[in-house]
Amino acid sequence: MKTVLALTLLAISAPLFAQDAAPPTPDSVVASATAEEWRAIDAADLMVMTLAPDASGKERRVVIQLLPQPISQGWVSNIRTLARAHWWDGTSVYRVVDNWVAQWGDGEDDTAKAKPRPAGLRTVPESEYVTPVQPGPEDGRDFILTPKREEVVINRWLDSYTVTAFVAGWPVGLDDQGGQSAWPLHCYASVGVARDLSPDTGTGAELYAVIGHAPRQLDRNIAVVGRVIEGIEHLSTLPRGKGDAGVYDDPALRVPILSVRMGDELAEGQRPRFEYLASDSESFARYVHVRANRNDAFYRAPAGGVDACNVQVPIRRVGS
Amino acid sequence: MKTVLALTLLAISAPLFAQDAAPPTPDSVVASATAEEWRAIDAADLMVMTLAPDASGKERRVVIQLLPQPISQGWVSNIRTLARAHWWDGTSVYRVVDNWVAQWGDGEDDTAKAKPRPAGLRTVPESEYVTPVQPGPEDGRDFILTPKREEVVINRWLDSYTVTAFVAGWPVGLDDQGGQSAWPLHCYASVGVARDLSPDTGTGAELYAVIGHAPRQLDRNIAVVGRVIEGIEHLSTLPRGKGDAGVYDDPALRVPILSVRMGDELAEGQRPRFEYLASDSESFARYVHVRANRNDAFYRAPAGGVDACNVQVPIRRVGS
Repeated sequence: MKTVLALTLLAISAPLFAQDAAPPTPDSVVASATAEEWRAIDAADLMVMTLAPDASGKERRVVIQLLPQPISQGWVSNIRTLARAHWWDGTSVYRVVDNWVAQWGDGEDDTAKAKPRPAGLRTVPESEYVTPVQPGPEDGRDFILTPKREEVVINRWLDSYTVTAFVAGWPVGLDDQGGQSAWPLHCYASVGVARDLSPDTGTGAELYAVIGHAPRQLDRNIAVVGRVIEGIEHLSTLPRGKGDAGVYDDPALRVPILSVRMGDELAEGQRPRFEYLASDSESFARYVHVRANRNDAFYRAPAGGVDACNVQVPIRRVGS
Repeated sequence: MKTVLALTLLAISAPLFAQDAAPPTPDSVVASATAEEWRAIDAADLMVMTLAPDASGKERRVVIQLLPQPISQGWVSNIRTLARAHWWDGTSVYRVVDNWVAQWGDGEDDTAKAKPRPAGLRTVPESEYVTPVQPGPEDGRDFILTPKREEVVINRWLDSYTVTAFVAGWPVGLDDQGGQSAWPLHCYASVGVARDLSPDTGTGAELYAVIGHAPRQLDRNIAVVGRVIEGIEHLSTLPRGKGDAGVYDDPALRVPILSVRMGDELAEGQRPRFEYLASDSESFARYVHVRANRNDAFYRAPAGGVDACNVQVPIRRVGS
């Protein structure tokens, strides 16, 4: 049975910061957020992928945050199983396409040469590309929609693809036939599940990270399961593949994955600690508003809007 | 005096390809375009930037197409002057920020250490960030708007920022107060003019290419002057800078620019030859429609829309 996402629409009246002396910037808004507006990301929702060191011997570590319930839960469960079985250890990043994706795994999803998979992987149905949505009580404040034209408003034409919103720090789409379902968006650094032709949905063994402009046509067609929150440059700077579909034609170009570990598998001192700015906080509302209406000393023509993938939810490392 | 852009709105009724046997893909539409639908890009509008070879000795060449008249003409004129003076020879790529830009020039725009500039550079006023627009006759067909929901329609809410359109192969924004002005968009691979705080508009000596999600908040705030049409990977894969604002803190990391030449400066056999799919062609209309409504074997949920930066105007190399 699928969990139903409670939906609350939060309308915020402008002006949000008439009392400020200097025009705010996205950075200044984030810097002035209160401690209570930041939410911890559970180490159990983080995955740390360590690549072989680069040519100069430097460490390459990529931290991925998995989507929380109830969005895309089927694949996330498989990914946890694969990670805890240390299945990715010894696999590689084998496909890199400019303005598209960097992809990793064993590259043999359904062939006889495929690396044996751990028990317990579920075949996820296409129906789980979306999550049912139900309006919640006003005080729930799980949901905040992106602004357009100086106010936070509910506007189905905000986006070229669908209505967009933020849920627990994640940009999502909502169907525009009444908001009965939601789905995570393909943005820069989103992590998704590579698959074969529909109705195959992929296991979660082959993953990719977006390294270009948001390929939103993939929304509801491929499962988004998370996002890279640190170290995306270790994927985005890799040489582009010259083989079919951007696969490295020379196996020597593959970038070995030394290990993938769930955050809570790591020793206390090595656990990744991150926080995100809560979607239902006043500071996040201000942040989105300011991103949509830049008017500091550098900007002369505020855009009056922002697409959900260009909002870039604030995430910060805690401690060292 | 500024040239006025003639504007024609072209409406296309669906279905565009009811007679097709198999669902078309963007690639299949481009492959079936007629020779007449492709337009040559003048070698005089191309700029070839040769970087120092990479660590393995491989050549790195970046081809940039400059914007045609009448859009952003002030800066483009300066850039032609700089290129013909071979001013960029010996400068470098000195700033690279993930999901943002790779920037080149001498990095000393207004300091005493700045490399002397050629004579004839114009100070471009902020008013040239936009170009006046005037509706043209129906048969002019200079303009085609992006589609939404299975038809090519004029819809001011197509985009999170403004109304968008394609002019002579370039995505542009139109003001939504009546379409009186147009401006080029910041998309992946767009090339723009770095500058100091407003009202400075930059000379064109310091340029950047976008290497991430379209930073549309920069539209009308920084001059877009062109786009990388070949070799963007030589910029997008560069190590990210760790100094202030992503500048390489170690000067040894700077990537030397061996030369920048206008296409028509090169010997006949070395001239870059490219074509783009005409914005007013039937094939381009089909291409945008298919990008907005993917329904081939891989896709199960057509998006029903596409943002202008995700359309990716087809451009092809001619000859070797």
